[in-house]
Amino acid sequence: MSESWTLNSTEIFPPKDFQAAAAACGIKPSGLDVALLYSTRPCWGAAVFTTNAVKAAPVEVSQRHLVEGGGALQAMIINSGNANACTGEPGMAAARAMAEATARALNVPVQRILVCSTGVIGVLLPADRITARLDDLKLGLSSEGLGAAARAILTTDTTPKVCSAEASINGRPVRIAGMTKGAGMIHPQMATTLGFVLTDAAIGPALLQRSLEQACRLSYNRISVDGDTSTNDTLAIMANGGSGIPDIEPDSPAQELFVEGLTRVCQSLAQQVVRDGEGASKFVTIRVTGASSEENAARIARSIANSPLVKTALAGEDANWGRIICAAGYAGVPFDSRRVSIYLGDLAVCREGGAVDFEESRASEILRQRDIELTVHLNFGSSDATFWTCDLTTEYIHINADYRT
Amino acid sequence: MSESWTLNSTEIFPPKDFQAAAAACGIKPSGLDVALLYSTRPCWGAAVFTTNAVKAAPVEVSQRHLVEGGGALQAMIINSGNANACTGEPGMAAARAMAEATARALNVPVQRILVCSTGVIGVLLPADRITARLDDLKLGLSSEGLGAAARAILTTDTTPKVCSAEASINGRPVRIAGMTKGAGMIHPQMATTLGFVLTDAAIGPALLQRSLEQACRLSYNRISVDGDTSTNDTLAIMANGGSGIPDIEPDSPAQELFVEGLTRVCQSLAQQVVRDGEGASKFVTIRVTGASSEENAARIARSIANSPLVKTALAGEDANWGRIICAAGYAGVPFDSRRVSIYLGDLAVCREGGAVDFEESRASEILRQRDIELTVHLNFGSSDATFWTCDLTTEYIHINADYRT
Repeated sequence: MSESWTLNSTEIFPPKDFQAAAAACGIKPSGLDVALLYSTRPCWGAAVFTTNAVKAAPVEVSQRHLVEGGGALQAMIINSGNANACTGEPGMAAARAMAEATARALNVPVQRILVCSTGVIGVLLPADRITARLDDLKLGLSSEGLGAAARAILTTDTTPKVCSAEASINGRPVRIAGMTKGAGMIHPQMATTLGFVLTDAAIGPALLQRSLEQACRLSYNRISVDGDTSTNDTLAIMANGGSGIPDIEPDSPAQELFVEGLTRVCQSLAQQVVRDGEGASKFVTIRVTGASSEENAARIARSIANSPLVKTALAGEDANWGRIICAAGYAGVPFDSRRVSIYLGDLAVCREGGAVDFEESRASEILRQRDIELTVHLNFGSSDATFWTCDLTTEYIHINADYRT
Repeated sequence: MSESWTLNSTEIFPPKDFQAAAAACGIKPSGLDVALLYSTRPCWGAAVFTTNAVKAAPVEVSQRHLVEGGGALQAMIINSGNANACTGEPGMAAARAMAEATARALNVPVQRILVCSTGVIGVLLPADRITARLDDLKLGLSSEGLGAAARAILTTDTTPKVCSAEASINGRPVRIAGMTKGAGMIHPQMATTLGFVLTDAAIGPALLQRSLEQACRLSYNRISVDGDTSTNDTLAIMANGGSGIPDIEPDSPAQELFVEGLTRVCQSLAQQVVRDGEGASKFVTIRVTGASSEENAARIARSIANSPLVKTALAGEDANWGRIICAAGYAGVPFDSRRVSIYLGDLAVCREGGAVDFEESRASEILRQRDIELTVHLNFGSSDATFWTCDLTTEYIHINADYRT
């Protein structure tokens, strides 16, 4: 079925009846820092949010809106440069003010507005700089605005991250388009970073939420840069039915196709986050196979992905498989180390839990690549999981030793 | 009661009837790499081992000896430069050969020998280089040998780590002396690194095991350098009764005093590991107070201690309390962020979950110190925990990007 979707991971094409605009409101020292995403027709929305016990004000406001509005959404307002987290009641007021000004400008109920922030924690967000510009933003709305919006949501990112997918569902073309941001504080437990997906598919709120959770489990929940789960993580979707297809039914071939496209868009976006990981020089795909369950496979892959010793060995292009099996071992999942094989690309470096006499020059050749694939075969069951991460370099330290000041 | 024990964290004084020796056996490229610790009289032993699912061969052999011998021990043989982990059946044979040669040289049953290794994973240990030198090691045994033994167990450490404590128990002087190693792959889940404690107290094996676990919980299990739990972690003790005191009874004042001394020795050793953390420029004490349980306090402290973003901010001497509260938030422990206060030393930087208008110059002064204390007051209960960690610097990356080759 994979051929059904045509993916483009460098350009963002607007699904029908969606518009966007961006502005420089002075939240960041310079550049675009506010994005407005809008559907010209009412649509259904769904979202997954951070599992961090400390939730930013916009996360709380958005969660409430989705519940109160029964999943009806029509716009998303997002700022970068300030996370509006740990900002107390003034922070809640700021998030509400952003939503209210957006609702007023677009003339829709406030419950249909999702509000998101990303940036430094613990600094009061000057919401008036945003609310003062909402009429301008509204005037700027256009179907060509998604690219600027994708740039406006960035923080330490070095590049915008977008993906578009197109397929025919029930005989009509349907589009899914997404943008995301994030390069540090990346360790998804439920959702991570900010990700926004728009589609002109027609799908009700409960099924949309379930579809998003399925896609998230195999994309954003399978990446890590540094193991830090942010206070602001949000992955949200709006589906406006602009394609004209009939409503997607639960457990239909159309739903299966939709989830496949959504998963592929979310995987592309999540992988772009890892590729732009702070200081990263490698993009690493970790496959754990032969586990007793998919959850256990994912836990082991996550443990390897978060090990500073594995990540520094990758930065040093060192075939140190001992650190890989060690990190697998402390994942809290039972397995028999004597059955484990480890591969760098297609080169076996460990068999039956012990060393293989491999050619160091072959290993070096594989490790010099920008994209590296590690496979850990447990021989302990029949379940697999894939996880994506990056290496840990001195550049990560430089970026993060002095981010706030 | 704390005044009862006199601690010395720079010298190791032998408890009665203990001897040690060290040798350069060519396991490391140069320098001392094998240590032998010996009690001239039979004694009771106890140990806690790594919880990693991948256990090194010496860990398996030592666990078996403790069980088969009913806790009777008389010597420990330790090598650095090779972890003898992930080395399959030849690795098991190597660990057994080390133990057997030691038993033969000292003329004691093999079950009374604890065997430990530390160093690179996945490379076969040339045990014959060690077994060939056991008669020399035996001839070198002396009560002055502990200092050399403490140097022989080191790997990436820059300095030996020892501690001696003395107190009067039941009217007689009792000594506890310990040595440890470790600077990377430090994230104790049960025990971490290698730690060896000798005492001339008289105490049976069950009570000795319980006392060691109590001490470990508040020392080795409260430190982290990089969040990686090793395959070889072992903390072991021998108690030979050489002090002449009567056997320590369970729940007696003498046991309480013994556990206190043992805890303080283990805390000193564990803290020395953190101070020598790979690339570390700061020693950081994290106190979490006002938690709903000690376990929850410790989990939050551990989460903060393992956050790369907190650790890089400390390296950058940046008062980034937002990262601290964020890391507390993903510990998996419920609390109310609106009640949280955070202090750097005695300077409040966050109150009621929000920013305090503190003087940056005061914060800089505190963060410029080598020793930093962070306090997170949750206001959510009455339990506390203390944890020790270090910062994350570019030097850590340099050390670990090319350790194996």
